Amino acid sequence: MRCVDRSLVIQLTCAAQRRCVSEAALKSHTEYLWFKTEREHEYINVTADVERIVAASTIREGLVLVSAMHITAGVYVNDAESGLIEDIDEWLEELAPYRPDYRHHRTGETNGDAHLKSLLIHHEVIVPITAGELDLGPWQQIYYAEFDGRRGKRVVVKAIGE
Amino acid sequence: MRCVDRSLVIQLTCAAQRRCVSEAALKSHTEYLWFKTEREHEYINVTADVERIVAASTIREGLVLVSAMHITAGVYVNDAESGLIEDIDEWLEELAPYRPDYRHHRTGETNGDAHLKSLLIHHEVIVPITAGELDLGPWQQIYYAEFDGRRGKRVVVKAIGE
Amino acid sequence: MRCVDRSLVIQLTCAAQRRCVSEAALKSHTEYLWFKTEREHEYINVTADVERIVAASTIREGLVLVSAMHITAGVYVNDAESGLIEDIDEWLEELAPYRPDYRHHRTGETNGDAHLKSLLIHHEVIVPITAGELDLGPWQQIYYAEFDGRRGKRVVVKAIGE
Repeated sequence: MRCVDRSLVIQLTCAAQRRCVSEAALKSHTEYLWFKTEREHEYINVTADVERIVAASTIREGLVLVSAMHITAGVYVNDAESGLIEDIDEWLEELAPYRPDYRHHRTGETNGDAHLKSLLIHHEVIVPITAGELDLGPWQQIYYAEFDGRRGKRVVVKAIGE
Repeated sequence: MRCVDRSLVIQLTCAAQRRCVSEAALKSHTEYLWFKTEREHEYINVTADVERIVAASTIREGLVLVSAMHITAGVYVNDAESGLIEDIDEWLEELAPYRPDYRHHRTGETNGDAHLKSLLIHHEVIVPITAGELDLGPWQQIYYAEFDGRRGKRVVVKAIGE
Repeated sequence: MRCVDRSLVIQLTCAAQRRCVSEAALKSHTEYLWFKTEREHEYINVTADVERIVAASTIREGLVLVSAMHITAGVYVNDAESGLIEDIDEWLEELAPYRPDYRHHRTGETNGDAHLKSLLIHHEVIVPITAGELDLGPWQQIYYAEFDGRRGKRVVVKAIGE
């Protein structure tokens, strides 16, 4: 039988209290972004918001999920270059056009196309966090895509890692 | 030199044994869902299955992956409203139609369109787990989409978190 | 007051030093794959690369993100069967065709279609890691899809888990 010295006890105690090991243990951090767009279709660059949330999480290595909480909106990663957003909007309208005769509209809704646009662009992305920062390529930006705006909408941003 | 008191020793011991710190350490939990649909195309709401698996994982904060293990099926998040599934099915048929002349069919297969539908709708989603529950928006439901049914198919559901 | 025996102290010490608990603590591992394709469009099976990276991570249970770091490339999971890649390439060209008149081209760029193809096929996948291996279905392969090649491009592969 031996006794431990005081500094070790403190180190062990804080380990048991989950504080000293927090760098190796899992951290998670969740925030919500709110949107109420002026137009029906809108594309909003949320990269800076996600960067801020990842910084607040103090996670150094992990993943961050950015996910629309609605079935008529999307989240995607692409470029902020001029003209591209208008091209994307036009392209989505071609592939998932507004039409009066979707079966879904028999419920009184008029946003059938917004559901299909959401499926096409996808509603979420996962971005890696490396050395405490979003590990994006040089032109990659995170966008919230609204297809049925003028009402309150939410995006969940959840980071997990160490 | 100082000695530690017994209750602390017990606390430290269980920490070393990975049990007391389990809330801070990473947990993972994996289950598989099996499907054998009656029809070639079928859309199955699996939200309750994923909820049950997440509850079994005892994870409070984390992510759950729901991923089709086949290249002719998909997993997506959208609404359970009336008419929508028929609209989605018709839309996928327009954008990735059945055709006899896919190159892939020279192998004797006839399901080229099912591969393209799987790519279009995507084969997986990640859903956040917050406070022990699926952190979905009010209308979001998780669907398994079968495009080449009447045979055994599988979806992997893997939750990680704390 | 009681003292702890030496072996317990050692066990506790290594717990505090984060080594003994490493199986329960979070691990992460990140590598990058580089591509410079000969052709403008190319589809490259990266499954073996991802398997190698997951093995190097020593993660037994977790998730691996495979994500293109460019806005004119994609990552998808589908089959390596004969004819399928040509079908996919032709289908993407139909749904997101090369056109001279994208607004984006007023910047001097000519790759507007590559952005849309990237959005359609999606730029990332998450694959589960179970018992130390990629938990893919029997025909699932991970592909890097290049839509604007002949230049250096990168894919980030990030595994997290225990």
